[in-house]
Amino acid sequence: MPENKLRIAQQLDELGVDVIEAGFAAVSKGEFEAVCLIAKQGLRAEVASAGRCTKNDIDAAINSGVQAMNIIIPTSDLHIEQKLHKTRSQILELTEECVTYAKAHGLKVDLLAEDATRSNFDYLLKVFQTAAACGVDRVTPCDTVGILSPDSSYDFFTRLTAEINVPVGVHCHNDFGMAVANTIAGLGAGAQMAHGTINGLGERAGNAAIEEIVVTLHELYRKRLSIKTELLYSTSQLVSRLTGVYPQLNKAVVGENAFTHESGIHTQGVLANSATYEPFSPALVGRVRHIASGKHSGSHAIKADLDSMGIKPTEEQFQEIFQRIKDFGDKGKNVMDADVLAIAEDVMGLGGVKPIELLEMSFSGGDKTPARATVRLCVTSKTVCGTAEGVGPVDAAINAVKDAIKETEAIELDQYNVKAITGGTDAVVEVVVNMRKGSRIVTALGVHEDIVKASLNAVISCINVLITDYSNINNKT
Amino acid sequence: MPENKLRIAQQLDELGVDVIEAGFAAVSKGEFEAVCLIAKQGLRAEVASAGRCTKNDIDAAINSGVQAMNIIIPTSDLHIEQKLHKTRSQILELTEECVTYAKAHGLKVDLLAEDATRSNFDYLLKVFQTAAACGVDRVTPCDTVGILSPDSSYDFFTRLTAEINVPVGVHCHNDFGMAVANTIAGLGAGAQMAHGTINGLGERAGNAAIEEIVVTLHELYRKRLSIKTELLYSTSQLVSRLTGVYPQLNKAVVGENAFTHESGIHTQGVLANSATYEPFSPALVGRVRHIASGKHSGSHAIKADLDSMGIKPTEEQFQEIFQRIKDFGDKGKNVMDADVLAIAEDVMGLGGVKPIELLEMSFSGGDKTPARATVRLCVTSKTVCGTAEGVGPVDAAINAVKDAIKETEAIELDQYNVKAITGGTDAVVEVVVNMRKGSRIVTALGVHEDIVKASLNAVISCINVLITDYSNINNKT
Repeated sequence: MPENKLRIAQQLDELGVDVIEAGFAAVSKGEFEAVCLIAKQGLRAEVASAGRCTKNDIDAAINSGVQAMNIIIPTSDLHIEQKLHKTRSQILELTEECVTYAKAHGLKVDLLAEDATRSNFDYLLKVFQTAAACGVDRVTPCDTVGILSPDSSYDFFTRLTAEINVPVGVHCHNDFGMAVANTIAGLGAGAQMAHGTINGLGERAGNAAIEEIVVTLHELYRKRLSIKTELLYSTSQLVSRLTGVYPQLNKAVVGENAFTHESGIHTQGVLANSATYEPFSPALVGRVRHIASGKHSGSHAIKADLDSMGIKPTEEQFQEIFQRIKDFGDKGKNVMDADVLAIAEDVMGLGGVKPIELLEMSFSGGDKTPARATVRLCVTSKTVCGTAEGVGPVDAAINAVKDAIKETEAIELDQYNVKAITGGTDAVVEVVVNMRKGSRIVTALGVHEDIVKASLNAVISCINVLITDYSNINNKT
Repeated sequence: MPENKLRIAQQLDELGVDVIEAGFAAVSKGEFEAVCLIAKQGLRAEVASAGRCTKNDIDAAINSGVQAMNIIIPTSDLHIEQKLHKTRSQILELTEECVTYAKAHGLKVDLLAEDATRSNFDYLLKVFQTAAACGVDRVTPCDTVGILSPDSSYDFFTRLTAEINVPVGVHCHNDFGMAVANTIAGLGAGAQMAHGTINGLGERAGNAAIEEIVVTLHELYRKRLSIKTELLYSTSQLVSRLTGVYPQLNKAVVGENAFTHESGIHTQGVLANSATYEPFSPALVGRVRHIASGKHSGSHAIKADLDSMGIKPTEEQFQEIFQRIKDFGDKGKNVMDADVLAIAEDVMGLGGVKPIELLEMSFSGGDKTPARATVRLCVTSKTVCGTAEGVGPVDAAINAVKDAIKETEAIELDQYNVKAITGGTDAVVEVVVNMRKGSRIVTALGVHEDIVKASLNAVISCINVLITDYSNINNKT
């Protein structure tokens, strides 16, 4: 949608990229409108449209009002013959015609040679030299199927930049997982511009990830770019939200776990000095560190965790808490703060004062009837029941909880979020809810294969945090 | 859980890896049991336990019955001083003691030097030489925070392998997104063994991804390994399912989109010759190609899509179908196979013959009982029923559909994805499923406030596309 594309373009502009490829103006009416919309914003960055080497596509770019165009033309025999059913000399003619035409209409032109890395090198040079003679502004050989290695990338760009007198760009695909390393190697060999995408999005396995290129140049090569690195994470989040494609947990720089420490060896190190297990501070990319409790956690991490909740066990109590957290993790569960708290309360004889406990829940529904749910809760030692309908079982179950506690506490559900679920219908679902009591908002997580149970767990954890007063309980120790 | 770890170990063995690190025997009772269980399977691969350089951890490895141990010892001053509060000479003593002790108890030993790439090089050599003198079998410098680049990796391993007389391993982390390229560079410089993980899992941004290392060596360096590459995808899927951590759609080799072609330029090329946009055949890693229809699709892709359903529009009809698909995409929607079918049916007046129709569905569940669902479907004019349990109502409902159609068609659910849900518990849910019949994969979307209904709609749309064959009734047009 044009408004989503615009929002991303504005964010990229704020991030500090030099050129934004706003879209492919000739592809459809909607895409054309999106490109027009972005072109007229007066962004600091140069705005470009992509397009094939045809008069039709160049006209679309001209009409969209962009300043620049990325003209794509194949240079490998495979692409020229099998895809376009043309000859090398026809491609040379097209290059001459199209670059001349685009330049005559005032566009800045980057000529993208498709499948350049599988092209005859001398022929590729001829195409680029032809474009240069027609006034092209930059040329970019594309590693269309990602077959470069850092070594071959370095050699390729060394040879190319020695022969070409206009700035050369690097455009790498990630089919072998080396797009970023290949991009860095190309820049090291004299290329002046890197093409990339946020989160490494793109056809198939995607393009080189901008966030990885930027931190690599910044940290490993000490290059100072115009990019505001502290916006990398929020930019990634925006793009994920608007495209619906989320990076994996273990994605470099922007993955949820990129600054999460779990194993005992690691958390012990990070608590002593974060540099032990972090190549750079998470703040560089606008993030914070997360120390997870889990079965690999060492005692240092769990002590820090309890301390943050104001719980001070004796050494003997601590050893038991520690062991039980390990046992809990051995069952394959994620250990959440709430679990650590529950174990600590139990070990320390704090009575496990959970103001609200779920005694029973059931739900039913179908396409002929509304979903219905019933819950039985123990609220500060009193059993209360709630029953409600909803648009589906999750809504019904949460409504039933609201129904059950309505006279007890003025608590409202503020936000309900489910992380993207990928895999099978039995994949683990992570639900995060924000709940509010007066001006206080708390967040809790529920994790379960069943979205109904995950949602209920999150809501009840939230309510318990909101209505428990830990400092009073702690005085009992 | 031990049984999950065992399942993964068996799969890795089948895949053909040389060494399996089964766990960290000293970390907890459950982990110890898992390591024991794997050690006694008589796998072809060598089974190892990880552990620190302490007598306690080595004893745990010995008692677990593994053949080998990866002994981890830090070698950088940062780690030695700030994490362990020790001195360089104490670490040398520990190395000598522990390697001698482990070897005396019959373990094969790989000494992993933690933070080796930020260590004083001469000191690192001394640690490795000490280990070698005590009979260590392999030594592996760890790039613990992922700071190598391919260049520095090549230099580092060239210097190291020149000085060390035992086999050297490479162990790279992915904080800058270059773990695979750094691993390849290390192997090129004389290292003989690569450490990696399926899907690149690991602390923070994870370790080098085995599947990327393998296809890089196989395709770009023409190395023939003992790995059965055709098991890479199923191995990745198994690990995702059992860990709950799924690769992103655009992950190289194993991401869902790694062999999906959407843009018109790309689909046109692939339909002419798949090599245009695929560096290697998806069959190499046990996968199939997927051509997606979307607003970037060219007419070639959409024609191929219709053709696979036996739909043969006239040129005029095709132009209208094509335009309506573009308009649909411009509204910001992803165009799924089911949408293409619906548009084609409408344009061609085919009357929307849906082989499968949902007549009735109901579900129930709760915290005391498993979720159960029942569906009644009309399958090519015959009523069939299915009933099943599941981890939650969605899983149960989909299982019920599978149960109902099980004798009709060999159709499998390949992927189930839910876009992140934000708002309230009554927010609209978008479910996308991929289903497979033979080598054909189709995608469909379900949208509803109730995740159960959204999921069912998506699954039934998919099945309808897969079993629709208009070649019989096409003569009506």
